[in-house]
Amino acid sequence: MQVSRRALVDPFIVMDVMEKARAAEAAGRSIIHMEVGQPGTPAPAGARAALAQAMEAGALGYTVALGLPELRAGIAGLYKRWYGVDLNPERVVVTAGSSAAFLLAFTALFDAGDRVGLGEPGYPSYRQILRALSLTPVGIPAASENRLQPVAADLDGVDMAGMIVASPGNPSGTMLSHEALASLIGYCDQRGISFVSDEIYHGLHYGDRAVSALEISDDIYVINSFSKYFSMTGWRIGWMVVPEDHVRVVERLAQNMFICPPHASQIAALAALDCIDELEANRAVYAENRRLMLEHLPRAGFDRIAPPDGAFYIYADVSHLTDNSLAFAAELLEHAGVAVTPGLDFDPVRGGQTLRFSYARATADIAEGLRRLEEYMARRG
Amino acid sequence: MQVSRRALVDPFIVMDVMEKARAAEAAGRSIIHMEVGQPGTPAPAGARAALAQAMEAGALGYTVALGLPELRAGIAGLYKRWYGVDLNPERVVVTAGSSAAFLLAFTALFDAGDRVGLGEPGYPSYRQILRALSLTPVGIPAASENRLQPVAADLDGVDMAGMIVASPGNPSGTMLSHEALASLIGYCDQRGISFVSDEIYHGLHYGDRAVSALEISDDIYVINSFSKYFSMTGWRIGWMVVPEDHVRVVERLAQNMFICPPHASQIAALAALDCIDELEANRAVYAENRRLMLEHLPRAGFDRIAPPDGAFYIYADVSHLTDNSLAFAAELLEHAGVAVTPGLDFDPVRGGQTLRFSYARATADIAEGLRRLEEYMARRG
Repeated sequence: MQVSRRALVDPFIVMDVMEKARAAEAAGRSIIHMEVGQPGTPAPAGARAALAQAMEAGALGYTVALGLPELRAGIAGLYKRWYGVDLNPERVVVTAGSSAAFLLAFTALFDAGDRVGLGEPGYPSYRQILRALSLTPVGIPAASENRLQPVAADLDGVDMAGMIVASPGNPSGTMLSHEALASLIGYCDQRGISFVSDEIYHGLHYGDRAVSALEISDDIYVINSFSKYFSMTGWRIGWMVVPEDHVRVVERLAQNMFICPPHASQIAALAALDCIDELEANRAVYAENRRLMLEHLPRAGFDRIAPPDGAFYIYADVSHLTDNSLAFAAELLEHAGVAVTPGLDFDPVRGGQTLRFSYARATADIAEGLRRLEEYMARRG
Repeated sequence: MQVSRRALVDPFIVMDVMEKARAAEAAGRSIIHMEVGQPGTPAPAGARAALAQAMEAGALGYTVALGLPELRAGIAGLYKRWYGVDLNPERVVVTAGSSAAFLLAFTALFDAGDRVGLGEPGYPSYRQILRALSLTPVGIPAASENRLQPVAADLDGVDMAGMIVASPGNPSGTMLSHEALASLIGYCDQRGISFVSDEIYHGLHYGDRAVSALEISDDIYVINSFSKYFSMTGWRIGWMVVPEDHVRVVERLAQNMFICPPHASQIAALAALDCIDELEANRAVYAENRRLMLEHLPRAGFDRIAPPDGAFYIYADVSHLTDNSLAFAAELLEHAGVAVTPGLDFDPVRGGQTLRFSYARATADIAEGLRRLEEYMARRG
């Protein structure tokens, strides 16, 4: 049997680094993980307790395709809590992580051959999911002076049926202001370009909170997840907010493509919404990690960094040190014992001169990683 | 914003019945559920205990995209246990239910516009998932004399890039013999038609066990799940076996489209593999339910039924009673208090004259449902 053309998506370059890190650890070396894009913390205790109880109370069969009504209501309530937005719970579609939300959104909005814009640097899977769905990703280089986020002027003349934007961004951690986001939404709205706002890092901010696209328009798709702020990556539970007149179409797609999101994860997620103290304690750890990063990375020579407004990443321009970020990441792993992510996955054009440092792990690990980086970079000269 | 053309998949007709059943129950009526396609039993106790322990032992973060290595090895072991087949665990891809496996398989094998054959009657979501992926479903009517399963002669002259077959079938419950399955696989192999074998009801047989396509060929995709035999529908955990030279391609697709299957469900599934006594006890309940169905359905006038080899369904030709199965199902709900599934979801052409009866629930419920059907059909005359 032959594989299809659309199956030939790009490999993750970071996998190479992760495999080298794994091999180094297997050989007995100590490695600090600044390459990972997930919290080291478990799901909140309240979430785990709720599931433990539910597992003994009844069979966790299929739920309705759009998710448990009480979870949809709880997520709608989060929009009130976080943004002061009144959201109709009927517009909330619970999904098997943001991954399933992307599959649903791209299928609901775009036909084979459609072109979809995405800012670069950005989450590499946007591009690969689009390809797998026979869509054409259109990379839009974002400028440093625009905080590595696309602006309306970047879109001028770009032929596309849709646009996906993330704020805070991955790998950049930069956020779009209300004005900047409104400008992008307005540009797309005027031209019939479907707008998808990836808000998966919302809740993880260190100054002003992030702005939701729902504060600006109802005629957009918003994608979010319990993975990051709620510390539930492996649970594969997220959500999407769609325009009211899209709910039935998305429901039918979800019934057929997924049947329902994982029931156990829905129960845990519902309880996680109330675990505010534990989640804010996690955020305080990230804030301290970020403070350490901003203090010590420049001392190690990594001083050209994007404004780290949110998420748990620092994206550094290392063009003064290398034009081969993959080799440089391998060097840091080998000589400093620190795993970092080369920028090539996020930006096929300029990523040879960038690195992403994650500070999602425990503070002690971050401090040790920074010590190693400083020590090695001083030695390297 | 506009929805795409491919998003306009068909609604499930059974949803109409389920909504009426829900409303009747909300109004205080007693309804016996013979429309549901899932066990009433929970995940095995050992599976739940394993998860409860794992939740307290560590953070359930992302796993690798293909699934926990020990789960892949355990699933490979199941092929030895069930079929005597030695399977390389590297070929096992753990998925978020068979739903994710279909998305992965169809994406890995077919490009936009490709035609994919499926037997009718069959699982309605095949058709809708194919459409959502910009593929063209090609319904192949299966004959009663062939146990409602396609045979090679049915495929003659059908232009298609792929073919999906299910044994035991849903809604029919009929199984393909080794010879019948080998004939279909051979036909497709000779013509370069990719073959996908849906084996989600394996383990649920009442005479001879079902034959796996892996007993016949390695150059096929096999899809299975923990939903039915292992009683874990809501956990959204399943798997796929692919040819060795497809593993890397499927891995990249899975990394991007799903990141990983739900970690908690993987842990529960791994333990479920060993819960043989509980699962065989469930199967004994289905066997008793099936015995009751075969005894009493004919007494109620439903005597034209497909040979119910496996799964937990009886598919009945009711052409002597109606040519509007939807109205007839509504009548049975209204007057007998029994919810059944009209055949239209499974067979758009002939489904107006068929019903699917599920016997997945507790024996007492099945006995009561059969009593009601006999009583009402006698009264109806």
